[in-house]
Amino acid sequence: MSSGYFEGTEVGECSKAGPYFVSKDEIIQFAKQFDPRPFHTDEEAAARSVFAGLSASGAHTFAIFVSLTCKLQPPLRILAGLGWDELRLPNAVRPGDELDLERTILEKRESRSSPDRGILRTQIRLRNQRGETVLQCFGNILVARRPDTKAST
Amino acid sequence: MSSGYFEGTEVGECSKAGPYFVSKDEIIQFAKQFDPRPFHTDEEAAARSVFAGLSASGAHTFAIFVSLTCKLQPPLRILAGLGWDELRLPNAVRPGDELDLERTILEKRESRSSPDRGILRTQIRLRNQRGETVLQCFGNILVARRPDTKAST
Repeated sequence: MSSGYFEGTEVGECSKAGPYFVSKDEIIQFAKQFDPRPFHTDEEAAARSVFAGLSASGAHTFAIFVSLTCKLQPPLRILAGLGWDELRLPNAVRPGDELDLERTILEKRESRSSPDRGILRTQIRLRNQRGETVLQCFGNILVARRPDTKAST
Repeated sequence: MSSGYFEGTEVGECSKAGPYFVSKDEIIQFAKQFDPRPFHTDEEAAARSVFAGLSASGAHTFAIFVSLTCKLQPPLRILAGLGWDELRLPNAVRPGDELDLERTILEKRESRSSPDRGILRTQIRLRNQRGETVLQCFGNILVARRPDTKAST
């Protein structure tokens, strides 16, 4: 049924993807490239930090969230991400974690300026294998409208 | 003078870091790992997208922002990032861009629960070589307080 177009989406609709397995190597490798603070790259320093152990960079957790959005079913015809609000990381991501994404559509509206697209406001939850939220935010995404509906409306 | 402790920071203080050179290879490599949508990984598909050309994944732009925060001078004793608000990507990041980060301290307050730390609210602007903003947000960061001030206050 779903074509991934804006018209096929419904407020309240919930999609899931995952799990994403987070290895210690990936945590350290990502952090060395983009966030080389000791609590993300060095196990001993991490043990003495507020995280009390190695944890993924917030940028890494965000990248994992984005990677899982590509796997949500049914896929949406996303044209662009418009932005994110109230992005929080309530719990650290640890080596060995398995993360699951849940995206709920909160609002939808047609673009005022471009009749070929619509905007969805979504609620995002990324949780670990214990059900603890490791990333939450509201995401605004631009989705293609079905070509033939433009002419008929 | 600055020790990087919370006490050494001032509202209105502005720090800069950069430039960060963004290569086409890095854009494609990051996107293949975390955001394999055609407009981030394939030049021909990107030319037909709303971006009208290859552009970096938003997750990549966010990671570059985080990487530049590690290079801001003077360095702060950051314990953790608490979250980000109103994260927006007003312009696409393109191959060959050189990005500069500017962080301004908007507010500061001591932690109510932990006397050894304080919280800064900051304004973030990541701009390209033409001065166009490619990422903006408000960031909340946890910073260590100077150890001796705990006893004297």
